[in-house]
Amino acid sequence: MRVPAYAAPAAGRPLAPTTIERRDVGPNDVLIAIQYAGICHSDIHTVNGDWGPQPFPVVPGHEIVGVVAEVGSDVTTHRVGDRVGVGCMVNSCGECTNCLGGDEQYCVQGMVATYAGTDRDGTTTQGGYSTHVVVDAGYVLSVPDGIDAAAAAPLLCAGITTYAPLRRWGAGPGRKVAVVGLGGLGHMAVKLAHAMGAEVTVLSQSLKKQEDGLRLGADDYFATSDPDTFTQLAGRFDLIVNTVSASIDVDAYLSLLAVDGTLVNVGAPAEPLSLNVMSLIGARRNYAGSMIGGIALTQEMLDFCAEHGIGAEVEVIAAARINDAYERVLASDVRYRFVIDTATLG
Amino acid sequence: MRVPAYAAPAAGRPLAPTTIERRDVGPNDVLIAIQYAGICHSDIHTVNGDWGPQPFPVVPGHEIVGVVAEVGSDVTTHRVGDRVGVGCMVNSCGECTNCLGGDEQYCVQGMVATYAGTDRDGTTTQGGYSTHVVVDAGYVLSVPDGIDAAAAAPLLCAGITTYAPLRRWGAGPGRKVAVVGLGGLGHMAVKLAHAMGAEVTVLSQSLKKQEDGLRLGADDYFATSDPDTFTQLAGRFDLIVNTVSASIDVDAYLSLLAVDGTLVNVGAPAEPLSLNVMSLIGARRNYAGSMIGGIALTQEMLDFCAEHGIGAEVEVIAAARINDAYERVLASDVRYRFVIDTATLG
Repeated sequence: MRVPAYAAPAAGRPLAPTTIERRDVGPNDVLIAIQYAGICHSDIHTVNGDWGPQPFPVVPGHEIVGVVAEVGSDVTTHRVGDRVGVGCMVNSCGECTNCLGGDEQYCVQGMVATYAGTDRDGTTTQGGYSTHVVVDAGYVLSVPDGIDAAAAAPLLCAGITTYAPLRRWGAGPGRKVAVVGLGGLGHMAVKLAHAMGAEVTVLSQSLKKQEDGLRLGADDYFATSDPDTFTQLAGRFDLIVNTVSASIDVDAYLSLLAVDGTLVNVGAPAEPLSLNVMSLIGARRNYAGSMIGGIALTQEMLDFCAEHGIGAEVEVIAAARINDAYERVLASDVRYRFVIDTATLG
Repeated sequence: MRVPAYAAPAAGRPLAPTTIERRDVGPNDVLIAIQYAGICHSDIHTVNGDWGPQPFPVVPGHEIVGVVAEVGSDVTTHRVGDRVGVGCMVNSCGECTNCLGGDEQYCVQGMVATYAGTDRDGTTTQGGYSTHVVVDAGYVLSVPDGIDAAAAAPLLCAGITTYAPLRRWGAGPGRKVAVVGLGGLGHMAVKLAHAMGAEVTVLSQSLKKQEDGLRLGADDYFATSDPDTFTQLAGRFDLIVNTVSASIDVDAYLSLLAVDGTLVNVGAPAEPLSLNVMSLIGARRNYAGSMIGGIALTQEMLDFCAEHGIGAEVEVIAAARINDAYERVLASDVRYRFVIDTATLG
């Protein structure tokens, strides 16, 4: 089956329309007619070659929402017409401790990324900037009706990436949570932490988005460019979710944690960072990392979002505007996620 | 009350006999006739000036065991003749969140160190290399009869320093715990983790102390000088307690952790260290720090040691050998803790 798609032909080159082959629907597969695909910053890193050589042409997109068009003979979990989603992974070994424990993203053999990955059959995966995709049913999520389809797409990456650490480190009533950076990930972290009942503070470079932050659910908003912020908030937070991939002064952020508090990175700077161990020892603090979330947790997140009326704040665009959108993402000129309407691809 | 002691007269100078003043026993105080005082590596750092200027002359010693000689009028927790201990702190504000939560060592106003500290009355504290000490009853531990007095002394620092992270991060049956370094702290970590029911692995520079390690309770022993160790043990441990204060390759040790695993430093290298955040993100790992433990937890540790017949492995020395002992500690030539018999001070 050949389907329309937008692909990067080589590292750093603009994306352009093309067609790609999708595999036949196997007994465990689901064919999805894609409606929306979010644009994640990691799409840009990948096609720019920032993360090393890629199997070009690459069709990015791992925030996928669509409707089931066909199911394989053994599929019982999804039916034709169901609204479904696909996130950052489309396969894993299914047999290692981590897969069995519901942490497929940490599969010992490596999870299969939704695009530019090598699937278990040896083929190269292609992502959601396309009209259709065939995915193993075990990696297809149900998207509840309560969420707008376009607003649901970013939940599959930005949503689960922030939901997972908030759950793991106990965001909830009586807990003080800070979110560093108010972008695609950060704005989801604010909405989710607020819905979980935590007291939420945004720590952003400037106060430019303060009004937005408070509207999205933050109780407080501070500029990290102001050194007073670090004095004023010393020892305050139980959990800090750092959504910024640029290097930060880790010691400064750790100083904002209470005893037993945790700073979690959900993105990684390109360069190693420097850390004074006393920042940890001085208050039994933790520095942690988290990467998306397992399939069961992703479903839990989608159900939680439906229950609480949470979707991403999105700007829906036509496929022809993908390259412009990339420029605007790099300029932080998006509130808060671009989502491609794949009806414009055909 | 003037009492015999051994003091460092200035930074880097040998310790020498002296006498020091102990305060009158106040209504909440306990006068302790010291029997044994352990020699901790941090005593050496302090008197060498490695940790900045100190209020010389300094009498080190924060691993103190003795017998109650007198109690203040309001003291109900200890009686004359009781065997007691004092660890790294002798006071704190008692009113902040951390003190009220049983984490006096993280007192927001700063805990008062047992020596070279400034007490809440403005006086400078002097430690356990002495025949007597007067301590607020709230910071005096009961040392159960089941432990030899000399072997109990190092529990007050080396014991609680390792017990606290083992408890905090859940050492116990079914959990794989690694201990980095088999010195004063490391040998206690092995004994304690083993008694808690964990599977214990020692990660030491060489295999020189392997026989000891296994005798103390380790199930496995690996040399970190052998690069194969890091390949062979990749992703294996739930908890790694790093007792080595020298800089380590944090990324290499993090790679030995399973998903959700924690590497805990109980000592801090002098220089900041370098960390690749992907080491954390790739398996939801944690890098943490821990400093001694609160008073209630220290008592729990002592009771646990008595119940399990655990004491430190000690070499009891006369006061006149303190400077020699310091040289041997610096040369790692002690198995595993020097303890001063304070009867030799008089």
